[in-house]
Amino acid sequence: MSTECAATGKSEDIEIWFDFGSNYSYLSVMRIEDLAAKHRVRVNWQPFLLGPIFQSFGWSTSPFVLQKEKGDYAWKDMARLCKKYRIPWKMPTQFPRRGVLPLRVVLVGTGQAWIGDFAKRVMLLNFCLDRDINSQDEIARILTDLGQPTDEVLAQAKSDRTKNRLWVQSQTAKDRKIFGAPTFFVRGEMFWGNDRLEDALEFASEKAERR
Amino acid sequence: MSTECAATGKSEDIEIWFDFGSNYSYLSVMRIEDLAAKHRVRVNWQPFLLGPIFQSFGWSTSPFVLQKEKGDYAWKDMARLCKKYRIPWKMPTQFPRRGVLPLRVVLVGTGQAWIGDFAKRVMLLNFCLDRDINSQDEIARILTDLGQPTDEVLAQAKSDRTKNRLWVQSQTAKDRKIFGAPTFFVRGEMFWGNDRLEDALEFASEKAERR
Repeated sequence: MSTECAATGKSEDIEIWFDFGSNYSYLSVMRIEDLAAKHRVRVNWQPFLLGPIFQSFGWSTSPFVLQKEKGDYAWKDMARLCKKYRIPWKMPTQFPRRGVLPLRVVLVGTGQAWIGDFAKRVMLLNFCLDRDINSQDEIARILTDLGQPTDEVLAQAKSDRTKNRLWVQSQTAKDRKIFGAPTFFVRGEMFWGNDRLEDALEFASEKAERR
Repeated sequence: MSTECAATGKSEDIEIWFDFGSNYSYLSVMRIEDLAAKHRVRVNWQPFLLGPIFQSFGWSTSPFVLQKEKGDYAWKDMARLCKKYRIPWKMPTQFPRRGVLPLRVVLVGTGQAWIGDFAKRVMLLNFCLDRDINSQDEIARILTDLGQPTDEVLAQAKSDRTKNRLWVQSQTAKDRKIFGAPTFFVRGEMFWGNDRLEDALEFASEKAERR
C-alpha cells in the first residue's frame, strides 16, 4: 500500500540516465519530476556521455545525423511531441551538442534538490534557446539564477575528481548495457526512451504498493 | 463534428505499413482494428518488405540482431508490452522471419474485410506459435479457416502480377522515406512505430472533426 510506503518514509527510485545533447532526453528531463511526484517516486539523476556508447557501435555521431530518413522524421516527431507535452521546441542549429560541463555539474550536485531545475534549464538552453550548453558563462548564469555558489560548483565540476566520475558514469552506462538516452532503471529493470517513462513509473508504483 | 462525418459517410484513413517479420508490427497489427474502430478511422493495410530498406542502410538484417544490447532489450520490451496489451508472446526461435507469401496474400485481398483477421493470424503464427510464416501449408490453413477460396487466393498470390506489386510496394515505402515498421500515415503525416499508433489515430480523429 502506498500509505505504508509513506509511513515508513520509503519510496521507489527511478534512475534517469541522460545526456544534455540528446533530444529525447530533453522530453524526459522536462517531464520526469512532475510525473514522478504524482507516482510518489524519487528521481535519481544519472548523467553520462552518449557519444562513447555510439562510438562503440561504430557510429561517429547520432543516428539522427547518420541516417537521414530517421533524422528528418525525428525532428517532426519532436515538434509533435513538444506540442503534445506543452514543452517549447526550437530545432538546434547544432546537433548533437556537446555538454560535458553541465553533466559534470550534475555530478557535483548529486542528491541535491536543485539538480532537476538545473537540468531543465540546460535542456532549454539547447532545445529552446539554441545556445552553447558547454559554455562556462551560460552554465554560470544558470547556477547563479538557482542561488548556487557558482564559482565553487564550477571549480568542483572542473576538478579531476569530477572528470573521472563522469568517465566512470559513462563506463557504467556501457556495463549496464545502455544503448541510447534517456534510459530509466527501476529496481534494475531497464526502460529505454522517453516513450517508456510512464511505464517505468507505473512499474515503480506497482512495486511500492506490493511492499 | 464526428456526426457530420458519419452523415456524409466520410471517414479518415490510417495506413499501416508493416512486415510480418517485424515484432513491433505484430503489436500494431493485433491492436489497430479495435483502436481504429473506436476512433471511427478506416484501416488501410500496406504490406511491404523491410529487408531491402535495412539493406539500403548497409544493414544485413534487423538492428535487433546486429546490435546485441538493443536486441536483448527489445525482447524484454516485447514481453512487457504484450503483457500490458494482453497479447500472447513467445520469442520466435527464428528472427526475423521471412514472410513474403502472406504479404502477397494481403495484396490479393486489398480492401477486403478478412485482411485484418488474416494479418493477425499470420502474426500469431510467428510471435505466438513460433512457426514458419512463409509455409504454403500454414497460410492455406489460415485462408481456409477464414472461409476464403484458398487455392484461388494462393494462385493469385504467387502470380507475377502480385510479386511485382509487392516489389512496387517496397519501392514506394522507400520513396516515402519509411525506415522501419510499423509506420503509419494519416493524410501524408508519418508516424513511426507501435508507440505512435494512438497519436496517429488521435491525429486522424482531429482532422475528421474539423471537416
